Amino acid sequence: MTISMYQASVPVLLHTLDAVSAFLKKAEAHAELRKIDPAVLLGMRLYPDMFALTRQVQLTADFAKGTAARLAGVENPKFADDETTFDGLQARVAKTATFVKGFKPAQIDGSETREITIPIGGQPRTFKGQPYLLHFALPNFFFHAATAYDILRHAGVELGKRDFIGGFKTE
Amino acid sequence: MTISMYQASVPVLLHTLDAVSAFLKKAEAHAELRKIDPAVLLGMRLYPDMFALTRQVQLTADFAKGTAARLAGVENPKFADDETTFDGLQARVAKTATFVKGFKPAQIDGSETREITIPIGGQPRTFKGQPYLLHFALPNFFFHAATAYDILRHAGVELGKRDFIGGFKTE
Repeated sequence: MTISMYQASVPVLLHTLDAVSAFLKKAEAHAELRKIDPAVLLGMRLYPDMFALTRQVQLTADFAKGTAARLAGVENPKFADDETTFDGLQARVAKTATFVKGFKPAQIDGSETREITIPIGGQPRTFKGQPYLLHFALPNFFFHAATAYDILRHAGVELGKRDFIGGFKTE
Repeated sequence: MTISMYQASVPVLLHTLDAVSAFLKKAEAHAELRKIDPAVLLGMRLYPDMFALTRQVQLTADFAKGTAARLAGVENPKFADDETTFDGLQARVAKTATFVKGFKPAQIDGSETREITIPIGGQPRTFKGQPYLLHFALPNFFFHAATAYDILRHAGVELGKRDFIGGFKTE
């Protein structure tokens, strides 16, 4: 008994995309309640040369989309990075989740040794599917999701770690 | 061909523990260069009710230790949370990595359906091994590691995402 590449990717990505969508809803409600311009919250960042909240969410979504597409060996669609509102970001996350959900286990299972070439720092780099997923894609995905959460916490939005971890999936 | 529970846990945890150790070294060097009291950096946090850097690193280490121990069904040793210096945190991370590295694949493989009961919010909750690893333990582990990184970036330590992602493991 082992884990399939599908199990280690699609449901994991969807679980945290759901959590991101839920904590963004709390952030939007916080802005409304406190009469904060949503654009200010969306533009917040932890340091001047770090990405702002909007970009962190776009990157979280892109790592989800790209991971599923690359493991399945299908074209990774380009989504325009043009969101300027919470509704826009919610639509981006939802569109990404629909895309990820569309993959069947048979498309992704067996991709452990599939060669995946991605540009990193302008240079193409080739990974086998399993290390790509476990040592590159998931850490990147969680990094941007956690940083989005950290920006919101830093901005005073009332969230707890449970908002990041999402619902407990015990089986 | 599939992923084993060992492959999805031990090397993944060790990879990011290495990255945490490396970025803590950069943080210590930054403090020395800027004549910042290391204790100030270790006590930084993103919001008053969030954990400070020291605790984020302790929790990263504890999720690594606990994940390996619980999947293997062995006692999860308690490490005292008494670190007050960068050296102390490095020793904590190193001790944790040694513990995690000590597991053999045979101890962890096959733990997909092993029942794992942990206290969450004071209540025991039982997970099967695979959802525990993929939907609870790894998100928590990456959450605390990314938040430690985010605290350091927010404090002005010169890090880039590559410091979080660590070395590329392509095979």
